[in-house]
Amino acid sequence: MIEQQIKETVRDVMDFPKPGIVFKDITPILKNQELCTQIIDAFVERLSGLAFDAIAGIESRGFLFGLMLANRLNKPFIPIRKAGKLPYKTVKQSYNLEYGSATIEMHEDAFEPGTKILIHDDLLATGGTVEATSLLIQKMKGEIAGFSFIISLDFLKGKDLIKPYADKVVALAEY
Amino acid sequence: MIEQQIKETVRDVMDFPKPGIVFKDITPILKNQELCTQIIDAFVERLSGLAFDAIAGIESRGFLFGLMLANRLNKPFIPIRKAGKLPYKTVKQSYNLEYGSATIEMHEDAFEPGTKILIHDDLLATGGTVEATSLLIQKMKGEIAGFSFIISLDFLKGKDLIKPYADKVVALAEY
Repeated sequence: MIEQQIKETVRDVMDFPKPGIVFKDITPILKNQELCTQIIDAFVERLSGLAFDAIAGIESRGFLFGLMLANRLNKPFIPIRKAGKLPYKTVKQSYNLEYGSATIEMHEDAFEPGTKILIHDDLLATGGTVEATSLLIQKMKGEIAGFSFIISLDFLKGKDLIKPYADKVVALAEY
Repeated sequence: MIEQQIKETVRDVMDFPKPGIVFKDITPILKNQELCTQIIDAFVERLSGLAFDAIAGIESRGFLFGLMLANRLNKPFIPIRKAGKLPYKTVKQSYNLEYGSATIEMHEDAFEPGTKILIHDDLLATGGTVEATSLLIQKMKGEIAGFSFIISLDFLKGKDLIKPYADKVVALAEY
């Protein structure tokens, strides 16, 4: 079972990034390429019911499996980056953090209007970045085809922010 | 020829990140999965003479092809990140930028002493981050096995900072 293998491999780090938080550290997964391949295999299988044309991966950890998945499925990969990193003309979307706010960007020529896009990140937590990514894609007339995460921290209710797509969320390991 | 295909695909963006700089934008490569696969194939072929046990990829763009290459070669992938991002115990290395300085980190249990490591990033420019990554790896008693880049901006002399490894640098497209 991929879920059990992921859970056995991920490392809990206490009090990161701040006291009281238990952080799910995926770096042990990256040491195990057999498991990395099984993760991609599981995504391919679990995503087989969703129609999409491209994969948007969220910086930085969404770049890891995002490009590998896009490559396996022969779909364009679209990087979603923190403000100021993408060199060409961009569209921006801000979102609230617990304290303050953050902005993400996408190249304005990342895709054609009407393109069906799968949004990928390693982990779904409170969902702020993922919701902002959805808004960014809709701003450019893209269609949200679904979401893929290695891990979802369901107790943080991130799925509530993407509720219209509840049946289009693939998370391989849920807590 | 992979070099020609990369050069035809990469987009020059003028005056990014600041006036006078011509930035090599790799995002058009990410739209073309056939080319992404050819890049991995070319790395595998050009790296076949180097012995290494693991691949260290530099955040963020080094995560893109770094994990895919590690997966193809069945080697552990080690993320090198900006300070404050890795959750577990880390070792740090600072380096100078044109104005000020930056710090990168690696988990202290990223590899065993004596491990031979290939350092990967998408692009070699002035070489500061790559040199800092080498120092970080040597601090933890790793061996530098070589370097892989999609692009090297040779006119910025980054290779001078890794001169001891001059015969262990693979760059698929050189300017």
